Amino acid sequence: MRRITKQVIEDMSVGAAVLASGGGGDPYIGKLMALQAIDEYGEFDMISLEELDDDALVCASHMLGAPTVLVEKVPSGMEGVAAVNALEERLGRKFDAIMPLEAGGLNSLLPFQVAAAKGVPMVDADGMGRAFPELQHVTWTLFDIPACPAVVCDEKGDVVTIEACDNRWAEMLSRSTAITTGGSVFMADYAQTGAQAKEASIPGTSTYCEVIGRTIREARESNDNPLPIILDLVNGVELFRGKIDDVSRRTEGGFARGFAHMQGFEDYDGMELEIEFQNEYLIARSGEKVLCTAPDLIAILDSETAMPITTENLKYGTRGVVVGIPTYKHWRTERGLAIAGPGYFGYGQDYIPVEDRERLL
Amino acid sequence: MRRITKQVIEDMSVGAAVLASGGGGDPYIGKLMALQAIDEYGEFDMISLEELDDDALVCASHMLGAPTVLVEKVPSGMEGVAAVNALEERLGRKFDAIMPLEAGGLNSLLPFQVAAAKGVPMVDADGMGRAFPELQHVTWTLFDIPACPAVVCDEKGDVVTIEACDNRWAEMLSRSTAITTGGSVFMADYAQTGAQAKEASIPGTSTYCEVIGRTIREARESNDNPLPIILDLVNGVELFRGKIDDVSRRTEGGFARGFAHMQGFEDYDGMELEIEFQNEYLIARSGEKVLCTAPDLIAILDSETAMPITTENLKYGTRGVVVGIPTYKHWRTERGLAIAGPGYFGYGQDYIPVEDRERLL
Repeated sequence: MRRITKQVIEDMSVGAAVLASGGGGDPYIGKLMALQAIDEYGEFDMISLEELDDDALVCASHMLGAPTVLVEKVPSGMEGVAAVNALEERLGRKFDAIMPLEAGGLNSLLPFQVAAAKGVPMVDADGMGRAFPELQHVTWTLFDIPACPAVVCDEKGDVVTIEACDNRWAEMLSRSTAITTGGSVFMADYAQTGAQAKEASIPGTSTYCEVIGRTIREARESNDNPLPIILDLVNGVELFRGKIDDVSRRTEGGFARGFAHMQGFEDYDGMELEIEFQNEYLIARSGEKVLCTAPDLIAILDSETAMPITTENLKYGTRGVVVGIPTYKHWRTERGLAIAGPGYFGYGQDYIPVEDRERLL
Repeated sequence: MRRITKQVIEDMSVGAAVLASGGGGDPYIGKLMALQAIDEYGEFDMISLEELDDDALVCASHMLGAPTVLVEKVPSGMEGVAAVNALEERLGRKFDAIMPLEAGGLNSLLPFQVAAAKGVPMVDADGMGRAFPELQHVTWTLFDIPACPAVVCDEKGDVVTIEACDNRWAEMLSRSTAITTGGSVFMADYAQTGAQAKEASIPGTSTYCEVIGRTIREARESNDNPLPIILDLVNGVELFRGKIDDVSRRTEGGFARGFAHMQGFEDYDGMELEIEFQNEYLIARSGEKVLCTAPDLIAILDSETAMPITTENLKYGTRGVVVGIPTYKHWRTERGLAIAGPGYFGYGQDYIPVEDRERLL
């Protein structure tokens, strides 16, 4: 059991946005919500997977929708609690702990608030080890843990309980609910025992986020260049350095979709890069050359501050370093690639690990 | 309590399609499903509202979606039973009887099959006295009976339980689920006591459908012209006689939307009529002159057989008589017109009862 202070929240929100691969919700909103929850409920408790009893019951708590919408439609935070309450009622049993679905600016921190309001700890683990666009993109799917019953809540008090035939249909039904209710919703799902969580979750994600965020902060405080330190920490690969000169972004089908185009500078002068996204950055290409695809992570870090830039914050003129980060091992299995590889997202590419791909320099 | 024979089903399916105002699902499919259910379960029991105990629990059983989809995606019939079962489980109580939501080719007859499979009677009453496009367009809404919890089932086994903040949101959330799962779904909703049903439902709708259908059949069997007999029976107004020379129909937003254009013949020679629909016929216009709007009913009857033509069966060259039928009294109240009048459907018209409107002849 660890106590989560405001400083931990600050660091974690930055690290989560690095692992979020551009998605997972605005880290600033996530941070504000978590800090406010500390003011209200006191510092949070976080337990490791090992500290979870095998017969404990846990669920995931998260938002779903287009992060672009969330920036305009800031959540009150109680929607997430309402979703967990409704799932408890449906199952006739209280949850002993709350888990994040993914690493993301908002989705890493929202569960703290929900757990605090429920008076239970948050588990230091998640189902993605990064952020992915869709609900079924969790290691829990790889271990046949159903998303359903899944509860969807919005800010108006609508509650929709989904019992889908599989996790992909759970995604489609919750996504259409999100679109109908205005573009983003709060969910509770993937109810599982402690034993299941230990087998199927990615351990230590929140602490890993904190370490990344703290490393960036400390490097900046001591005027070191944080970029090489971060690359070393996450086993990352520098893919590109450039200035964003075009962004196309639309909210479509309950996702933020589009691309960012960059003109290279420094060693990359004269080269170009295009990154396509569906909430998360999914593929980085320079002309015909593919530099990185999902399930590996693509992060754009501000070239001055090393702060991660999420898809809804992409702007003309931003100067960034594009980094490829190897994904968690579960995603590199045949089944992992089938549900979250480049083929699933329609890129018709065979998956090549980012560290094995040919680079521009 | 009445026994419902195959002959009653045949007649009822025709009469229901007259009151359906073009919607409510293909009467042929509804009839086949009900006849097959008689083969399987024996003849059905139908009770009147008066025969329902005040403390009995009833719910509505119906499909929701675009009738155009239903013609291609014929239901097995068990989706409706699954929805009622799930609603019983949610409420922790069995239903004593099943009610139709609306008068419609399919939606009048499907509840017989569901009731038979559940071993309970069907109630001779409904919530519309016609068919309307949307879930909240029931007299139950006028009496503050909530649609929710509402259960949506599809043919794949997906079950979605909606607890919406009001009946219009129940419509929007179930409609988006219908779109996601392929365009049509089966639902159980508007759980209410016998006392509530007696106060808020339209009594005798199924028997009324049967009488209309039987009248058409008997007139045809005795080589009488059924049209004047039908007009007399339903207090209908002849609006037009003509040939369909243009049909625009698209499946959009979970509805069949479009218009039928007709060229007049006989006394209407040289005149034109356009009827717009959203699952149901909602407005009939000849040039600037509005002849009939929702909530009054618009039916197109085949000019030879007097058989009603639903929106998904509109075809170039069909010769029809267009009939306006006064709606049930509840729909002519201020609240009824607010939720189902021409203004709601975006026609910006004040409502004028069809019998008071200026006619073409």
